[in-house]
Amino acid sequence: MALTIFGVPGLPEIEAGSDLAEMIATAAAADGNPLADGDVVCITSKVVSKAEGRTVDLNTVEVSPFVQQYAEKWEKDPRAIELVFQEARRVVRQVGPVLITETKHGFVCANSGVDQSSSGGHDRAVLLPIDPDGSARRFRQRFKELGVDVAVIVTDTFGRPWREAQTDIAIGIAGMDPVISYIGQVDPHGHEFRVQAICVADELAAAAELVKGNVSRVPVGVVRGLQWTPDEQATMQSIIRDSQNDLFR
Amino acid sequence: MALTIFGVPGLPEIEAGSDLAEMIATAAAADGNPLADGDVVCITSKVVSKAEGRTVDLNTVEVSPFVQQYAEKWEKDPRAIELVFQEARRVVRQVGPVLITETKHGFVCANSGVDQSSSGGHDRAVLLPIDPDGSARRFRQRFKELGVDVAVIVTDTFGRPWREAQTDIAIGIAGMDPVISYIGQVDPHGHEFRVQAICVADELAAAAELVKGNVSRVPVGVVRGLQWTPDEQATMQSIIRDSQNDLFR
Repeated sequence: MALTIFGVPGLPEIEAGSDLAEMIATAAAADGNPLADGDVVCITSKVVSKAEGRTVDLNTVEVSPFVQQYAEKWEKDPRAIELVFQEARRVVRQVGPVLITETKHGFVCANSGVDQSSSGGHDRAVLLPIDPDGSARRFRQRFKELGVDVAVIVTDTFGRPWREAQTDIAIGIAGMDPVISYIGQVDPHGHEFRVQAICVADELAAAAELVKGNVSRVPVGVVRGLQWTPDEQATMQSIIRDSQNDLFR
Repeated sequence: MALTIFGVPGLPEIEAGSDLAEMIATAAAADGNPLADGDVVCITSKVVSKAEGRTVDLNTVEVSPFVQQYAEKWEKDPRAIELVFQEARRVVRQVGPVLITETKHGFVCANSGVDQSSSGGHDRAVLLPIDPDGSARRFRQRFKELGVDVAVIVTDTFGRPWREAQTDIAIGIAGMDPVISYIGQVDPHGHEFRVQAICVADELAAAAELVKGNVSRVPVGVVRGLQWTPDEQATMQSIIRDSQNDLFR
């Protein structure tokens, strides 16, 4: 089994209300790589959020006293930090200028995924989609209307404990089971697998990042050739470890 | 830029002293995909360890009293757990039957990466390579002798906090810088990047896992088409977060 992975360049600037699926399908075809049945389309959450209007004018943000003193101490924009807290349901670590939170979706990441980096001006922030699985499902449905049966993954770029630098991971999915389970299977020696389950969704997100590039603004990567298990109930919520089994709260 | 990823099937059983690089090059060619300059060859640590003789006959292991009582309590093989402790320099979490350790290389993972699953018999365990970067460098050198200039990544399958299921990551590297840094660069809007550095080595390991499969015994995946930065001093040690910045010790 060989996979091919290609980026989808040439997307116009995304705005609230943009038909992003249609723009992706058109741009892929224009680049000589029209989407095809079975593709896994990995879309950076930032453009999903922009299309869904999940941007905030920082001048409209009311800053709480707690946030104000913290932001001042560490020379951060208090309006952006206020959004980080509003997007969080729990602070996991707040050490010096580093703020690791659990988002309302249950993902653990820096700054609740709030992105102030490239939102079309210094006074805007981009929040994560409210329901990344729902976003992915709507994309999958729209791609179907456009004639292709594809799985969709909404990605974001997360840090991780113990290892420097970041990788892309999946925060939303539609059409395919995010996990391949080996539980109960045996290897060629008749021994049970040490690896019990692989989060193929995260591996696909990581693979797609390799063709995106952060500078060149290619927010979509397509993985072709993977045999995936169709699953219309798929959700990235299934990989969130419950608090009882979480050793790193 | 499009990437292709393919597995290298048909490898014979690996034994201590096997010329694994030669076996990989031969098997890839036999499968119609001869290795080529610029490929990134991702090799599962288990076969690296086997070729390096990093297997242990469990009947030779002397079990300490501390390990004996822990293993009995949780119905684990005390000999395998003894090896887990011998391979560790620090226990990060020991909660119920779960044992998260920092290996002597500095990687944080379950059971120090000790693998009792498919080592050619129930009385053998496979340990991680002593120096995975060194292993990767020797592979790279051997591939060069065989006529191809490739980067090499030694991979393992790790769990992670907060997210269920596992993904493949890099534990050793040769020939290419494991990280792409965006520090100081600006996006098309003139704003600095939120993402400062991408661990492309981990993303390559994850991508390669997609063509490996744990059941079908394909321990090698090759990524072709990536523009990587040559770096003869490359090491995965560079991505290990130092203890001062580690919020999850």
